[in-house]
Amino acid sequence: MSRIIGFETYDVRFPTSRELDGSDAMNPDPDYSAAYLVLRTDAEDGLSGHGFTFTIGRGNDVQVAAIEALREHVVGRDVDEVCADPGIVNRALIGDSQLRWLGPEKGVMHMAIGAVVNAVWDLAAKRAGVPLWKLLADADPEWLVSQVDFRYLTDALTPEEALELLRRGKEGAAEREAELLAEGYPAYTTSPGWLGYSDEKLTRLAREAVAAGFRQIKLKVGADLADDVRRCRAGRAAVGPDVRMAIDANQRWNVGQAIEWVKALAEFSPYWIEEPTSPDDVLGHAAIRAAVAPVKVATGEHVQNRIVFKQLLQAGAIDFLQLDAARVGGVNENLAILLLAAKSGVPVCPHAGGVGLCELVQHLSMFDFVALSRTREDRVIEYVDHLHEHFRTPTVIAHGAYRAPTVPGFSAEMLPATLKEYSFPDGSFWRADRGEV
Amino acid sequence: MSRIIGFETYDVRFPTSRELDGSDAMNPDPDYSAAYLVLRTDAEDGLSGHGFTFTIGRGNDVQVAAIEALREHVVGRDVDEVCADPGIVNRALIGDSQLRWLGPEKGVMHMAIGAVVNAVWDLAAKRAGVPLWKLLADADPEWLVSQVDFRYLTDALTPEEALELLRRGKEGAAEREAELLAEGYPAYTTSPGWLGYSDEKLTRLAREAVAAGFRQIKLKVGADLADDVRRCRAGRAAVGPDVRMAIDANQRWNVGQAIEWVKALAEFSPYWIEEPTSPDDVLGHAAIRAAVAPVKVATGEHVQNRIVFKQLLQAGAIDFLQLDAARVGGVNENLAILLLAAKSGVPVCPHAGGVGLCELVQHLSMFDFVALSRTREDRVIEYVDHLHEHFRTPTVIAHGAYRAPTVPGFSAEMLPATLKEYSFPDGSFWRADRGEV
Repeated sequence: MSRIIGFETYDVRFPTSRELDGSDAMNPDPDYSAAYLVLRTDAEDGLSGHGFTFTIGRGNDVQVAAIEALREHVVGRDVDEVCADPGIVNRALIGDSQLRWLGPEKGVMHMAIGAVVNAVWDLAAKRAGVPLWKLLADADPEWLVSQVDFRYLTDALTPEEALELLRRGKEGAAEREAELLAEGYPAYTTSPGWLGYSDEKLTRLAREAVAAGFRQIKLKVGADLADDVRRCRAGRAAVGPDVRMAIDANQRWNVGQAIEWVKALAEFSPYWIEEPTSPDDVLGHAAIRAAVAPVKVATGEHVQNRIVFKQLLQAGAIDFLQLDAARVGGVNENLAILLLAAKSGVPVCPHAGGVGLCELVQHLSMFDFVALSRTREDRVIEYVDHLHEHFRTPTVIAHGAYRAPTVPGFSAEMLPATLKEYSFPDGSFWRADRGEV
Repeated sequence: MSRIIGFETYDVRFPTSRELDGSDAMNPDPDYSAAYLVLRTDAEDGLSGHGFTFTIGRGNDVQVAAIEALREHVVGRDVDEVCADPGIVNRALIGDSQLRWLGPEKGVMHMAIGAVVNAVWDLAAKRAGVPLWKLLADADPEWLVSQVDFRYLTDALTPEEALELLRRGKEGAAEREAELLAEGYPAYTTSPGWLGYSDEKLTRLAREAVAAGFRQIKLKVGADLADDVRRCRAGRAAVGPDVRMAIDANQRWNVGQAIEWVKALAEFSPYWIEEPTSPDDVLGHAAIRAAVAPVKVATGEHVQNRIVFKQLLQAGAIDFLQLDAARVGGVNENLAILLLAAKSGVPVCPHAGGVGLCELVQHLSMFDFVALSRTREDRVIEYVDHLHEHFRTPTVIAHGAYRAPTVPGFSAEMLPATLKEYSFPDGSFWRADRGEV
């Protein structure tokens, strides 16, 4: 019998604030970072499970401490057992009654659970010899239902309903898998739209995006209305009338402000307004959505768990659900979120970017297409062209679409050289940066 | 000019799980703990500011790490300046754009902010020579409004409305202060009702509570319906028909379960059902409240911030708002929450117990009575008779009421001997417990 014998954590930070990559109305100077975990086993295959929480710099050490607090729940476990049923780990972590007090199921502690759970799924897919999206798409519906925690969900989704959705998802799955492998999954790009970029850079990058095959771009807004009018005008001029142009306020506004601001930008036909206000404000999103139509409302990258997503759907508060692979409690909770969305018919357009989020989230959308929602219509995965070079199997984008990963696992594995160079504060990059080399 | 020069943190843990004190349906074996902070200054008065996050054991180290992450925002600040305007510190901590990613405004990072902000208020009240409740009650309404962060609130409460509420609160404040000093503030007790206690212990403690002057008790429920029927029958028999008996499920149920379970206990006339489901589920609480009337619905000890409280009030989801002094971002955010409750007319019945929560929360309710809601009707503060002996100025209960504190500060200060004995893992208690002495 093989066991999990290693639980290695890393505080990995990249100095992205120096180029204003990733700058927006709420996050002026992010240093993209990851609280990173490697699970090692004593199995002869030598495979390891990788997972992480994305952060934007300060506090990445707190996130590492939270992952460390979960060590005892994982080390010593039977590898075959947890790979056959990652729900075991999910339940053990969510169910720790003392740690639960620190959430429950939100913030630092919940993201730590997500990192550990995702590492288990990475290991499970590697041992199964398939990319995670295919492991999920080929899975038995009853087994998938067993992976979901229905606590606090049954007023919106029962296990029986979930089973029915997943059984229906099997119809035509082979054809959709073939389409996916041939065509990929549509992406949109945020790369032109960071708030710190000049109009010239915005225009150039927006044109390049369209030339590269993207049918949707996104611009950051929310700091200054006059700037936003100018930037939206430039963006629309660059992409023309037929390419979708979303806008993203990163939670900058109160409800009333959001409504006024979006109306003031309506002449540029924004496709969706993303994160117009607090991610906690279900009723606020519903009020905004009612007021700004036909502009659509999207949110999710900071939505803390399935319970808030449930309410966003119950309240008719969103047009697009933007799940994040590393904000909630990992694959198990994202299965619940995908099922809630599928039942309500709301398209899932995942949040990505950051460190490794593109790598993770593609698997969830591809599973959703092949074996749950059965459609890519009005669905796009965010794409940002940052930091992919640090991953062993980076995302591949062609003609504005994510290519389906074929390498076994969850695409979560960073290069050993990156862990060495960017570990904070003692990696070689940071030492050199302080003049210590 | 004096500066904050010390920022000392302590991981303090008490072995409460050994007596099943504090046991409930979700927390079977809590070890009541505090991530504790002392702010020291170089002022000649020698005064220090104390604050903490309450946790129930594992993860208290993560909480300490989160408080440590805030050190640079505080050390070096001008003591007079921050004591004259604690909002400076509140805004700096909430506004750290990189740390914000770890919430925003929820979970570990937000509770850490609460500990620091509360320590500043403790220091401010000590330097002013008054208990915190009186500092707030005597404060200028414009100044109090300046302490509140209205972001994400203005659809429910504007600064102008807050100012009007606080101005109205001044009418008759002197008379209410005199009443408060003479009579105290009504308490209810949870001491009889822990799930781990036998029926005999429950009955004995319930009778003692009534004899001591309490007009409300609370029982934990939610693990087993047959047990709950038996325990509620025993509780009602012990206190008679005229004493209020609340029940508390500690988030154990789905929405449908909550409705069924409460109806099954209705024959014992429970006064309120507390935390029937997830604290994140605004719409779930609204559905439960509509279904279980005339039993009332209370929640709040795990409500993460003012934005969720806003929605609970907007949705008509609660009859009682149970704010917690150390879950949200400290006094500044609790001012916002008290103002939201005052505008809606929903009584605030704070959560207490744990470590030091009774000591803190009494100040907020007493301010509310003297200078905001202007009433104690249907308002009670939770009281649990645990661990008060570790505080320098413990709460005083007489005839079922909290006596108004008269010592300057926020009553947050633990005894130096306690910090030494119960620091984990190297305090003398824990060393002896491991047989190391």
